[in-house]
Amino acid sequence: MFRRVAIIGVGLIGGSLGLTLRKFSLAEVVVGAGRNPENIHLAVRRGALHQGYKTAAEAVVNADLVYLSTPVKAIIPTLKVISPYLSPGTIITDAGSTKVEVVRQAENILPAGVFFIGGHPMAGSEQGGITAASDCLFDKAFYIFTPTEKTSLTALAKLKTLAKNLGTRVVEMTPEKHDCVVAAISHLPHLVAASLVNTLLAFPDKEHFLSLAAGGFKDTTRIAVGSPEMWRDIFLSNQEMVLTMANFFRHQLSIFEEAIASGNGQVIFNFLEQARKIRLGI
Amino acid sequence: MFRRVAIIGVGLIGGSLGLTLRKFSLAEVVVGAGRNPENIHLAVRRGALHQGYKTAAEAVVNADLVYLSTPVKAIIPTLKVISPYLSPGTIITDAGSTKVEVVRQAENILPAGVFFIGGHPMAGSEQGGITAASDCLFDKAFYIFTPTEKTSLTALAKLKTLAKNLGTRVVEMTPEKHDCVVAAISHLPHLVAASLVNTLLAFPDKEHFLSLAAGGFKDTTRIAVGSPEMWRDIFLSNQEMVLTMANFFRHQLSIFEEAIASGNGQVIFNFLEQARKIRLGI
Repeated sequence: MFRRVAIIGVGLIGGSLGLTLRKFSLAEVVVGAGRNPENIHLAVRRGALHQGYKTAAEAVVNADLVYLSTPVKAIIPTLKVISPYLSPGTIITDAGSTKVEVVRQAENILPAGVFFIGGHPMAGSEQGGITAASDCLFDKAFYIFTPTEKTSLTALAKLKTLAKNLGTRVVEMTPEKHDCVVAAISHLPHLVAASLVNTLLAFPDKEHFLSLAAGGFKDTTRIAVGSPEMWRDIFLSNQEMVLTMANFFRHQLSIFEEAIASGNGQVIFNFLEQARKIRLGI
Repeated sequence: MFRRVAIIGVGLIGGSLGLTLRKFSLAEVVVGAGRNPENIHLAVRRGALHQGYKTAAEAVVNADLVYLSTPVKAIIPTLKVISPYLSPGTIITDAGSTKVEVVRQAENILPAGVFFIGGHPMAGSEQGGITAASDCLFDKAFYIFTPTEKTSLTALAKLKTLAKNLGTRVVEMTPEKHDCVVAAISHLPHLVAASLVNTLLAFPDKEHFLSLAAGGFKDTTRIAVGSPEMWRDIFLSNQEMVLTMANFFRHQLSIFEEAIASGNGQVIFNFLEQARKIRLGI
């Protein structure tokens, strides 16, 4: 499918991409670069890359697909660095968890003749890094692409075929719609889970509380163990939508709290019944 | 251990108690009663009860242990009904998810010569009812007893031994402390999970959102499928503590939201790092 794929940022997503490309023979050569030389070394040893490079600029030379799987906030700085080294016709995509900011800036930065399309493979795990990478990570995951009016339809079609060949279910939406959807189903739950855990800070004897925490608390707060660095970047790059969702959430919280305060069993029941029905529909 | 145990309310907890008592031969005879004749029939068929009765009053005659595993709001009405039929020396305990209200009223209602001790086996599942009952449900679960200054120490010792024989880890605390702890680690997470799901009501195309919901959203909202009836009762019987916890939670939420609004990456990072550390400690 692709002759030479350059993966910049070889963590969970980049590493899993390399493993999956090679498993299904979707690229002749897979190369990569990243911040940490040890990770690149490990990625080569694990078979995610044919070859590792010290810099992103070296890695992208002659690539016909460049895949940016760095933390969100590193995507645009990386694009600026590699821009002079890209060959005409190269397709560039990213795996950032937010899209509006990245897509707008990427389309402004890149030279004519190369094709950028924002993407977001909705695959992940609380365990990050190349050690957690797997050639099954993408299997049946949703893969969202966020084309704009500037997008090359030929390049988009190639990326969609690649994503399907990785085993994912492809969805298309605007960058704005994407950031709204993930704010609701991913960023808000993370914000809420972390706040729920930190609520226990109010208690000097919180160790005593925690030892009693059963499945409900554990499930609800599981995502709070995710990488603080990665999630900080996500929140900073989707500020407005996250705050909008937090307001919608506060509104629901208020309905529930008021029903409890006034002892209105019917409103409490209806609220819970509604949540139950929606949740069972997932 | 006990001669005749009467279980009132044979759902997930009552049914599992019957199965476990019989598995470990902790009672000579296990009888029961409940709202729904079919459930009692099924409990007998599944081997949770030797015998079922149509009314709680009939079931408790000659019992030396009465176990109230009805919904929280039915505990006190049931106690009033069975009170005249209790034999002197009988130990009565309940499995309600909140304790202050139940314990205070129970101690006022019951005649002299019978011994009430509040309890809360911290075992459960989103699937309720006798069909989900299991003789492993109590295994390694925490079992909280909430004695007061009126509690018979002999009766408490007997119940603690029973709980250990069921396979649980026994903890003692005051009813007030109990209701505070469960508000933080159980009721608040439920309130938050249901509110998180209902946040999606703001979107007319929520089905589209939901189809994309990955593991994070699913984990965080799993408990929202719990029985609305059971949870309504829990919220109504622990109003004050739940609202206090919701306030603590809102405070944490505000810290996080303000950090996002002002783009303060360091505060966001610290908040997430703190939540991560606490959560990893569970």
